[in-house]
Amino acid sequence: MSEEPAARPEERPRAPREVWKKGGRLLSVLLAVNVLLLACTLVSGGAFNKVAVYDTDVFALLTTMMLLAALWTAFYLLRTARRPGAVPHRDAHAGPIWLRGGLVLFGVCTLVMDVFKTGYYSSFFECQSAIKILYPLTQAVFVIVQTYFLWVSAKDCVHVHLDLTRCGLMFTLSTNLAIWMAAVVDESVHQAGSHSNASHARLAPDPGSQAGGDCACATTVCRIFEQGYFYLYPFNIEYSLFASTMLYVMWKNVGRLLGSGHGHGHGHGHAPSRVSLFRETFFVGPVLGLTLLLVGLAVFVVYEVQVSGDGGHTQQALVTYYGFNIACLGLMTLVSLSGSVIYRFDRRAMDHHKNPTRTLDVALLMGAALGQYAISYYSIVAVVVGVPRDALGALSLAHALLVIAQHTFQNVFIIESLHRGPPGAEPPDAPPKEPCLTFANPDALHALPACPPTPGPVGPSLEGPQEATAATPAPRTHWRRRCLKDISLFLLLGNVILWIMPAFGARPHFSNKVEVDFYGYSLWAAIVNICLPFGIFYRMHAVSSLLEVYVLA
Amino acid sequence: MSEEPAARPEERPRAPREVWKKGGRLLSVLLAVNVLLLACTLVSGGAFNKVAVYDTDVFALLTTMMLLAALWTAFYLLRTARRPGAVPHRDAHAGPIWLRGGLVLFGVCTLVMDVFKTGYYSSFFECQSAIKILYPLTQAVFVIVQTYFLWVSAKDCVHVHLDLTRCGLMFTLSTNLAIWMAAVVDESVHQAGSHSNASHARLAPDPGSQAGGDCACATTVCRIFEQGYFYLYPFNIEYSLFASTMLYVMWKNVGRLLGSGHGHGHGHGHAPSRVSLFRETFFVGPVLGLTLLLVGLAVFVVYEVQVSGDGGHTQQALVTYYGFNIACLGLMTLVSLSGSVIYRFDRRAMDHHKNPTRTLDVALLMGAALGQYAISYYSIVAVVVGVPRDALGALSLAHALLVIAQHTFQNVFIIESLHRGPPGAEPPDAPPKEPCLTFANPDALHALPACPPTPGPVGPSLEGPQEATAATPAPRTHWRRRCLKDISLFLLLGNVILWIMPAFGARPHFSNKVEVDFYGYSLWAAIVNICLPFGIFYRMHAVSSLLEVYVLA
Repeated sequence: MSEEPAARPEERPRAPREVWKKGGRLLSVLLAVNVLLLACTLVSGGAFNKVAVYDTDVFALLTTMMLLAALWTAFYLLRTARRPGAVPHRDAHAGPIWLRGGLVLFGVCTLVMDVFKTGYYSSFFECQSAIKILYPLTQAVFVIVQTYFLWVSAKDCVHVHLDLTRCGLMFTLSTNLAIWMAAVVDESVHQAGSHSNASHARLAPDPGSQAGGDCACATTVCRIFEQGYFYLYPFNIEYSLFASTMLYVMWKNVGRLLGSGHGHGHGHGHAPSRVSLFRETFFVGPVLGLTLLLVGLAVFVVYEVQVSGDGGHTQQALVTYYGFNIACLGLMTLVSLSGSVIYRFDRRAMDHHKNPTRTLDVALLMGAALGQYAISYYSIVAVVVGVPRDALGALSLAHALLVIAQHTFQNVFIIESLHRGPPGAEPPDAPPKEPCLTFANPDALHALPACPPTPGPVGPSLEGPQEATAATPAPRTHWRRRCLKDISLFLLLGNVILWIMPAFGARPHFSNKVEVDFYGYSLWAAIVNICLPFGIFYRMHAVSSLLEVYVLA
Repeated sequence: MSEEPAARPEERPRAPREVWKKGGRLLSVLLAVNVLLLACTLVSGGAFNKVAVYDTDVFALLTTMMLLAALWTAFYLLRTARRPGAVPHRDAHAGPIWLRGGLVLFGVCTLVMDVFKTGYYSSFFECQSAIKILYPLTQAVFVIVQTYFLWVSAKDCVHVHLDLTRCGLMFTLSTNLAIWMAAVVDESVHQAGSHSNASHARLAPDPGSQAGGDCACATTVCRIFEQGYFYLYPFNIEYSLFASTMLYVMWKNVGRLLGSGHGHGHGHGHAPSRVSLFRETFFVGPVLGLTLLLVGLAVFVVYEVQVSGDGGHTQQALVTYYGFNIACLGLMTLVSLSGSVIYRFDRRAMDHHKNPTRTLDVALLMGAALGQYAISYYSIVAVVVGVPRDALGALSLAHALLVIAQHTFQNVFIIESLHRGPPGAEPPDAPPKEPCLTFANPDALHALPACPPTPGPVGPSLEGPQEATAATPAPRTHWRRRCLKDISLFLLLGNVILWIMPAFGARPHFSNKVEVDFYGYSLWAAIVNICLPFGIFYRMHAVSSLLEVYVLA
């Protein structure tokens, strides 16, 4: 079953000769699961100092995986993609320009991080194993190869070497997730080292343990390298996750047949609004959002300075931090809610087409939100059940409740936006047709739900949109669309600042003693260190989804 | 959008008036996620003695949830299901008889457990809160109402009160999962209490903590009640999971439209082979399986007696236990593999129809296997990296490797079996038509993959199956079908014994000191206590899937 498709590629222009698609998928998923679990075991074992798994073991495994993945990628680019009929169609929804742009941006930051890491480990080359220098070098090669591969191939629906391509994609995906896990664990250990005091040092009892061996990082250059690479970790983490989502969509598209007109007919026009980026908004969203971003950055810097100083200012820093976050989350909740209210008046038909990219986006939004939900519920229980009720507890409770509300309403807004009908029914410059007609005659459409955007009763007016326009006020819809664009931009900038704070090291969860005292340090550290990476990923993913909402609105 | 469908039920006989199905689903999923996370927080908080969450909090929450779920169920049975046009079609794949039969069986055991629990807590009624007696009583009511509800409604495709029904189903599902979590945690605490020695008592430092308050369980009746309800826990756990899967399929079917002929045309005939249960096998599978089951029970009893006695026999008990498991797993791996090999010669077309029950089955098999995979990889790393290599380490390594192989090959076999074409094409008593034809002319079908089981070139022979039968050797296919039935029965019985051992308390993970010494007790206990419930559920779910495979083969 496995190698049939490659046998006679010339006589089959349309369908790959595959008896059972799920069989091929099963094989590759099993491969990925096993590789990933092995990596997970080693990475989590390496995180505990009591366990006799060393970081060199982890590095060796990851280096091998990256080399194998890079080999397969090269094979794909040089052989598979060049076979006749290898890529009969391309999925227009996959790999949009902002995702690929983000990938390149984060890829460049990862390369800088690799330079810093190489420099850092070269500072004490004599007294540690060579794998620690080999690892960043291999990672640089892997990042370059993979970024090029995803840039040119993200939209491919591959129809030859089906099983090999599926396994290769899944293996590369596992490699990215393993790198993500290793980076997250390394960063958590680093954070725990800088936040825990002597009695709590469970995850990283020795702050210099990253240096490895007996050598210390003495020179100034070495210190700069060390500081630098920890600040660049968030970009590496996001790079791995971006690459993973693109690889998953490619995997779903292997052997996929696109119906005629699908994927080309309404390609969700990524091009139309690239010229006039902010012209279609009221400027309120971007201006408010930018203000929020700048205030947030100031609050973040003040918080970091006050917390990392001596203990006197921690209380004040936490009040500032929670105050800003509560205001920001409250505002974003209200804005998401008003976006959902606007959709109640928007009569565009829902898009029911199959779209792996969108399905994945929705699943990731819902799944990644679980991280912050879990932290919030643990906080709520700690504050409500715990005995000493002070101002910080109240702030923490309000913050947790608002986090839940904000994630919920933002997800509802984004998911509803992504499922709205194609904007092709509403050309950007011509006056809109159907929403106005719907508004003038809501009952007519009401009786015909879930149809393509050409309802029967109003058919004749499609030939004469000018008359329809004359009958209904055109600016009304523009007002709605502009509002939606404002809302998406505001939420986007809000998510950026809420990404920056935890990604670059703000951990009020540990500075605020309410939860630490209630659960004990080790349990609370486990909860936060497992859930927070998903919360951080949620913010980044919401940004890319909101960019899509902005373009589609 | 939410209450439209209920407004005019009489004028719409077919399609529920739903603009966007995913919107309604989103709402109910958000409800379930939030309820579930709150329950998860309280249950996990209650498991740690250091945390100030008491089991009465957990019981109060669960009692409230069960009452609400029972109220909704009553509303559904009395109002929703009685509206005109409420259930226009029923999904023939949902709620097969063995699933509902298993539900009733486990439900009865849960009721017995509730009687034991009520008796146990009544023994010291004076000195603890009433909620501990209210809880089993409420659970008994809930189990009776829910079992009746699932028995009569599991196949419904509801088309009225869409949003209310979705939320109700998701809330009931959350309730079942919360009860499952509470039971698993309670059992883990109990196991940890009986396995850990004094220095390791982290999860349950006080073995009498389940008794609550200051009273001890002194009388013999009370002791019997306590022992009894802990032995009945596995059934309660499986009851919750069975109910959850059935509720999930009902939720997926809310508002679903079945195409004409689908769900009725090839209803995967549950009835045909109910009369002749073992007549179609070679008797090798059931006999070998029963032998395995009996030997396994004997080994299990010996193991439990030797381990719970004084420390001298632990080594010997472990060798017996691992020896049996290695033999059993190896045999099952080989049998699964040979089943997959048989399918390579079986040319029945794959069934590509949409089928929520099967999709869920596959996802649960793959997902639940992750639990045992994870434990095995942690074992492998501990044995390979750890320094003292003795006979027990080697046995543990072989066991872990075989567990991975067995889960993988069994999943491949089951998933492939579930996707085979309907057996309706092959009536149980008439000689089979298409597989023989395919066998006689493999290239003709080969050029037409992934089609419904009526290939064009062989069309005429469908009107005259007698001729086709005369041309091909009929016993050949019977031989294949019989083999598949033998294989599925053998695997089924193997899974039963592998379910019994961990479900009723065998924990070689802790008796065998290899992993405990490597990871430390608390980390290893966390790994096992989180992953093992999924492994146990996997065995039960594999049994129900293999029963389906047996019927379909």
